Amino acid sequence: MSELRQDPLTGEWVLLAPERAKRPHHAAQAKGRQALPVYDASCPFCPGNEADTPPEVLRLEIAQQGDSAHWNIRVVPNRFPALAPQGTTALKKAGDLFQKMDGFGVHEVIIESPRHNASIPSLEDREVAQIISAYQARYNALKGNSALRFILIFKNQGQSAGTSLAHLHSQLMATPIIPQHIGREFELATGYHAETGRCLYCDVFQSELNSGERIVAESRDFFVFHPYASRHPYETWIAPKNHTSSFGLVPTKQLDELAQVLKKVLLGIEIMLDNPDFNYMICSSPTETEVNPYYDWHLIILPRLSIAAGFEIGSGIYINTALPEETAELMRKQLA
Amino acid sequence: MSELRQDPLTGEWVLLAPERAKRPHHAAQAKGRQALPVYDASCPFCPGNEADTPPEVLRLEIAQQGDSAHWNIRVVPNRFPALAPQGTTALKKAGDLFQKMDGFGVHEVIIESPRHNASIPSLEDREVAQIISAYQARYNALKGNSALRFILIFKNQGQSAGTSLAHLHSQLMATPIIPQHIGREFELATGYHAETGRCLYCDVFQSELNSGERIVAESRDFFVFHPYASRHPYETWIAPKNHTSSFGLVPTKQLDELAQVLKKVLLGIEIMLDNPDFNYMICSSPTETEVNPYYDWHLIILPRLSIAAGFEIGSGIYINTALPEETAELMRKQLA
Repeated sequence: MSELRQDPLTGEWVLLAPERAKRPHHAAQAKGRQALPVYDASCPFCPGNEADTPPEVLRLEIAQQGDSAHWNIRVVPNRFPALAPQGTTALKKAGDLFQKMDGFGVHEVIIESPRHNASIPSLEDREVAQIISAYQARYNALKGNSALRFILIFKNQGQSAGTSLAHLHSQLMATPIIPQHIGREFELATGYHAETGRCLYCDVFQSELNSGERIVAESRDFFVFHPYASRHPYETWIAPKNHTSSFGLVPTKQLDELAQVLKKVLLGIEIMLDNPDFNYMICSSPTETEVNPYYDWHLIILPRLSIAAGFEIGSGIYINTALPEETAELMRKQLA
Repeated sequence: MSELRQDPLTGEWVLLAPERAKRPHHAAQAKGRQALPVYDASCPFCPGNEADTPPEVLRLEIAQQGDSAHWNIRVVPNRFPALAPQGTTALKKAGDLFQKMDGFGVHEVIIESPRHNASIPSLEDREVAQIISAYQARYNALKGNSALRFILIFKNQGQSAGTSLAHLHSQLMATPIIPQHIGREFELATGYHAETGRCLYCDVFQSELNSGERIVAESRDFFVFHPYASRHPYETWIAPKNHTSSFGLVPTKQLDELAQVLKKVLLGIEIMLDNPDFNYMICSSPTETEVNPYYDWHLIILPRLSIAAGFEIGSGIYINTALPEETAELMRKQLA
């Protein structure tokens, strides 16, 4: 029999229906990606084509090379931005019932390697650490702007994950509003804190660590798990062991460790699921409440193994055909 | 410049970014589907294979044929149900912070034609009307069961819309909970009603009819539009002109007209967008408040032209690269 589980962090219900994985033509989308060349002259993110992107806001060079033409990471404004620093954050009326706002904000691209065919698992540890540092540097550079209320760093890898360019990159978007979605998580978290004096995220994380059945891996300061009410097969969270309300506040000395954990988990997913398309998102507190006692930042990895269809869209309830206890056990063995 | 628009029915923000449609490899997924045979001996929904599905809960026959072996529509329980009428609706604890419930409910399949290669636009008007009647018959047969609090009828057509079988069919799922998503819409609608004495949905619909700029088509009792804060390109709504809080309450004499509108709109989408995969959902009031003065049922059609990626998943804000005013005008001309 299937089971409805309630996500303690959002109140949302998820439908765990492992029997549905037995359907005749079920819609597993996992697939190996085609091999890419190390260099593609037509790719705007490849070295030599720096003029095809707007000017850099951050460049990290390869340590041993003094030649500034050699970069390892470039962060540039998105050439086709969904949000841009023009306009205002004023609410405007568009009829009695309709309101709107300029698409004010920031939309950046983090080009994560000069090599066209790089992937996180293929990089050296220090290169992955440099990517995480670049994420945090951009996060912290923008968080002081009070017009930017929420900053999301995310990666879309592969066509079914929504990417338009194959060269390894992530994106940062900063919005002039706190998304409803995030606002609701905060309502729940502040309510819990008001009632108990504790952090809901810390308590849920501790509960996962205590039971252990959904734990995938642990390092000194981070742990990896498949959440109780996973919406998708192999939904994988990386979270801090000690209360840290924002990604911008992760101590510098922990960034190398975080990079190693991310690389290890992505390699595991690549091997176990035949190099699936995936997204990851770094979820953090809104900037105006960056330091708070009720929320923990976390990174969510979503391999694209299933499709949100009519039921998910119409009800908001996700059907997950894999039990997180089972996928966590498989992945724990893989990573051991 | 892009624009943030707030959906008056949900409070959610949508990011309208038409410039992003100009990206080099942008991720349009529209594609013609491959031609199917009229009969497929291996298809569990084709005539002759009735034993491959659980026994029917509804059968509609072709009017002029007395032979009961000839059916036009069959409704059967899903053989791989996500929800089933076993178990209870009791909340169960799974640790201090985690709760769950049996996957109690109903999951049915509406097999909409005996012909393997049928599509709604390829059917005769009376056949489409029969499908709509079957939807309403099942909706009304289940709504009296107080353990089923919410009933969703939906269609997944094509692989990128999440279907596992190509033969024309829709599904019905009835849940023992009111999804949060729906609960929030009702909170907004009841608040508006308490404050103004009016129905938010009627007011938004009237506002669309008055301005006309997003109207696609009109019949006597229904109208078709692309909403102000459309989350997806060509998101198309069919709504009643007169207050009707539930799909179960649509007057029988209007069902033929509704079927004609649906067929016309789906044909327009098929022609304009090269037969894209799509979902539709019939959104209705929870069963326990079926008759109410604050909500209108509606049918939402979503062609799968874009992919929800990291930003959408992480923020809940959808990026739509098409302006509803422009797509509505194009479709209005197509359907004229």
